Amino acid sequence: MINNSQNISKEAINQDFVLFGALGDLSLRKLLPALYQLELAKLLDKSLVIHCVIREMLSIDDFHEKISKFIKQRLPKGTFNEGVWSNFIDRIRCIDVDLESPDQYKKLTKILHNKDSVVTYYFALSPSLFEVVCDNLYSAGIIYDSTKIVIEKPIGLDYESSQKVNDKLADYFKEGQIYRIDHYLGKETVQNLIALRFANSILSNLWNSKSIEYVEITAAETIGIEGRWGYYDSVGQMRDMLQSHLLQLLCLVAMEPPAQLNYHNVSREKVDLLNALDPITDNIIMAQYTEGEVSGRKAPGYLNEDGANTNSDTETYICMRVEISNWRWAGTPFYLRTGKRLAEKVTEIVIHFKADQHFIFDTDQKHLSGNRLIIRLQPTEGISLELLTKDQGIEKGMRLRKDPLNLDFVGLQNASRIPDAYEKLILELLNSEQRLFVSRNEVELAWNWCDKAIEVCKKQSKQLYKYRAGSNGPDEAKEMIQKYGHQWHEDR
Amino acid sequence: MINNSQNISKEAINQDFVLFGALGDLSLRKLLPALYQLELAKLLDKSLVIHCVIREMLSIDDFHEKISKFIKQRLPKGTFNEGVWSNFIDRIRCIDVDLESPDQYKKLTKILHNKDSVVTYYFALSPSLFEVVCDNLYSAGIIYDSTKIVIEKPIGLDYESSQKVNDKLADYFKEGQIYRIDHYLGKETVQNLIALRFANSILSNLWNSKSIEYVEITAAETIGIEGRWGYYDSVGQMRDMLQSHLLQLLCLVAMEPPAQLNYHNVSREKVDLLNALDPITDNIIMAQYTEGEVSGRKAPGYLNEDGANTNSDTETYICMRVEISNWRWAGTPFYLRTGKRLAEKVTEIVIHFKADQHFIFDTDQKHLSGNRLIIRLQPTEGISLELLTKDQGIEKGMRLRKDPLNLDFVGLQNASRIPDAYEKLILELLNSEQRLFVSRNEVELAWNWCDKAIEVCKKQSKQLYKYRAGSNGPDEAKEMIQKYGHQWHEDR
Repeated sequence: MINNSQNISKEAINQDFVLFGALGDLSLRKLLPALYQLELAKLLDKSLVIHCVIREMLSIDDFHEKISKFIKQRLPKGTFNEGVWSNFIDRIRCIDVDLESPDQYKKLTKILHNKDSVVTYYFALSPSLFEVVCDNLYSAGIIYDSTKIVIEKPIGLDYESSQKVNDKLADYFKEGQIYRIDHYLGKETVQNLIALRFANSILSNLWNSKSIEYVEITAAETIGIEGRWGYYDSVGQMRDMLQSHLLQLLCLVAMEPPAQLNYHNVSREKVDLLNALDPITDNIIMAQYTEGEVSGRKAPGYLNEDGANTNSDTETYICMRVEISNWRWAGTPFYLRTGKRLAEKVTEIVIHFKADQHFIFDTDQKHLSGNRLIIRLQPTEGISLELLTKDQGIEKGMRLRKDPLNLDFVGLQNASRIPDAYEKLILELLNSEQRLFVSRNEVELAWNWCDKAIEVCKKQSKQLYKYRAGSNGPDEAKEMIQKYGHQWHEDR
Repeated sequence: MINNSQNISKEAINQDFVLFGALGDLSLRKLLPALYQLELAKLLDKSLVIHCVIREMLSIDDFHEKISKFIKQRLPKGTFNEGVWSNFIDRIRCIDVDLESPDQYKKLTKILHNKDSVVTYYFALSPSLFEVVCDNLYSAGIIYDSTKIVIEKPIGLDYESSQKVNDKLADYFKEGQIYRIDHYLGKETVQNLIALRFANSILSNLWNSKSIEYVEITAAETIGIEGRWGYYDSVGQMRDMLQSHLLQLLCLVAMEPPAQLNYHNVSREKVDLLNALDPITDNIIMAQYTEGEVSGRKAPGYLNEDGANTNSDTETYICMRVEISNWRWAGTPFYLRTGKRLAEKVTEIVIHFKADQHFIFDTDQKHLSGNRLIIRLQPTEGISLELLTKDQGIEKGMRLRKDPLNLDFVGLQNASRIPDAYEKLILELLNSEQRLFVSRNEVELAWNWCDKAIEVCKKQSKQLYKYRAGSNGPDEAKEMIQKYGHQWHEDR
């Protein structure tokens, strides 16, 4: 009888998933495929309807055909199933709405299940439309207490504009209804960071400035501007990547252990960490790529990309030394760096443990000492812990060698495919679990800190350095870290 | 010119390696093959002559043929080389000596290079001959200050008899000339224990009772008595395995870090550790195997082995909980166990790290928490560190899984073959490096401690438990460890 009552209560709540911008790049490449994977994994509620909001009217058949064609051929190997696809496509409706016309929203009112349904509005939209859509949803009377709203970055382009966006959202939604996406948080390895830090005493006991010498957080891309020069140039790498992804990674690596693994606790720890970041006053390097070669192909300089303005001083690379003023981390620098058109696509966190001060092996091997834990997010997800062991073989005395203990997620049993970040994020969203989303405080503190760093650069008339496309970044980034006796992890 | 003078000084010292018991099992299976591997690796001095002492006269050709036949076909794959073998055999002389006749030692006097040569006497002999051979070498005047003597266990069968052996050695040799072999110390993984503990800050920082819950040291054999029942029955597993190998492993796992990696420092730390062992008063289980099945084959009980006496109460299995009264280890028990005719041949050290007290993941997974470091010596040498990671896959929340980070020595680059322990030990011996050998103090403290444990068992009329051949040992061993909330690492 208990089972039955559970089923009834589950079915009593219908789910409406309203996808704005359903024919946009994000929807087609990420969101709809992620929803399909959830269907395949039987994780979508029976009642869930996916309402795709588009600009121009299409018959439902034409719409289905259009998206099917695009998505099917891009699904990961072995994940297409005709029956599942058919169930999936049955959930998908489409509706044309002129988002700037309030009266058009009546169409939406009609198609939603009813007042008792849980409605999710997913804004896969240009940020410039956020406000007007919010206003119009409100006017149409289709924002309920149970309604969820999902927005993607950028949430503003600085502290002030992000406040404006958040204020507007707060007019109509409580913080508990707002799901701000940083898709890095949905990545398996990023979540694994939580498991690693808080489920392994051997790591949690060492996770502080007494045991860790320094930490690197790198997000290096090989791609350039990909046809969106105008937008990118108004933003740059600091605002596009560092303020969001890299600071979120920093939070997860450095925050205090949350008492519980829920949104409230985790977000509070992230906020505390962001509050503890020292303002950047020096040790920041911005640079722009020049002509070069990436992966064996000629690549133009930033100022010669399609649509470029030859006078731009926007940075395509940024690195900085971040210090944290709290009991755990004072004395342990965090080096962040991210850039475009670099030698390799790699996102990784490298924890450099302090070496013991006393060394009893051959002194010419002292440089080997110090363990590293490498948490790799891209191109492949995995963990590697470097240990010093005896170099086996017969010889006098004892020689050391550095060996990685590896854990490659794809190589593991039952892991034929690592789920895309959006699958996890949408699942959590549908379950009203905010743990993997970003709070208003986090966004605004991150902007505030970045704004100050940009301000300092401007005031000091910081030089914009150059680096060749396809290199590891500017020489000045090396010099900056080497000044402290540290080095970037390039020998991947 | 510097090179030349070095060569001259090197050649000025000739090396004589006198192998007593050259046709014995140890010599044929271990010592001569190890010397050949050193030849192959070009690690033998040009001047080195191997004098094989045998009982009955053989022509040198017959002797060469005899040992060649035996050794060649047993060399590890890919290590036989005709030219190297020919050089090796050229070093090998043979001489028949009646070891109990003093005047026969004149033969030895004649064949040794001269007074300036460094002579090594390797006693691959029954311990009953140690004294008489020492006396006779002395009488023949062929013990010099530079002479080295090598003896194998057993060095006595209790504290008193080991003192007697050591006293006799001390009559003719200084401690710096005596090389007591425990071949476990020559194993790659045992030496690797030193590298792991003292070259890796992430381990050295955790190597104490604050971070380690308990430690297991296991040496399980599948073999039985192998035709030496009479000898074994007078000794038992405690004296045969635990007093030597297991206590040496315990020393290396638990000793304080030596200030330098030399014999003096390492031995002193081992002695300190042995002194800090609490006497065994309880938590000791002795058992004897009964009929069963090992690796799919029927195996007789201990009392039905060839040559058995049906009344024996000698233990073929022993396990105990050892506590160490010092600052590092008080509160962390070390469980030692060793036995014959067990399910699997395995020698390993398992470090159980303490789990964090707070657990923020699903409570039904709490049993997973706690990291283990497994250092495997047999059947394959390797290291495995168990970490908890996120179970990848889309699902609500976060589920954990236990994954081993593995380092298999044989699998590593350039490690087609792991050198046998004797290769390393003989090389160190030839280089007069005592670090991998056992001091008098160590041997005697180990005996003293074991004697007391045996005494306690006798006084308490401890029961001799039974276990089936091919099992994991007696149930009482499980109960003993489970009483403390711990368990043996059986899920290999």
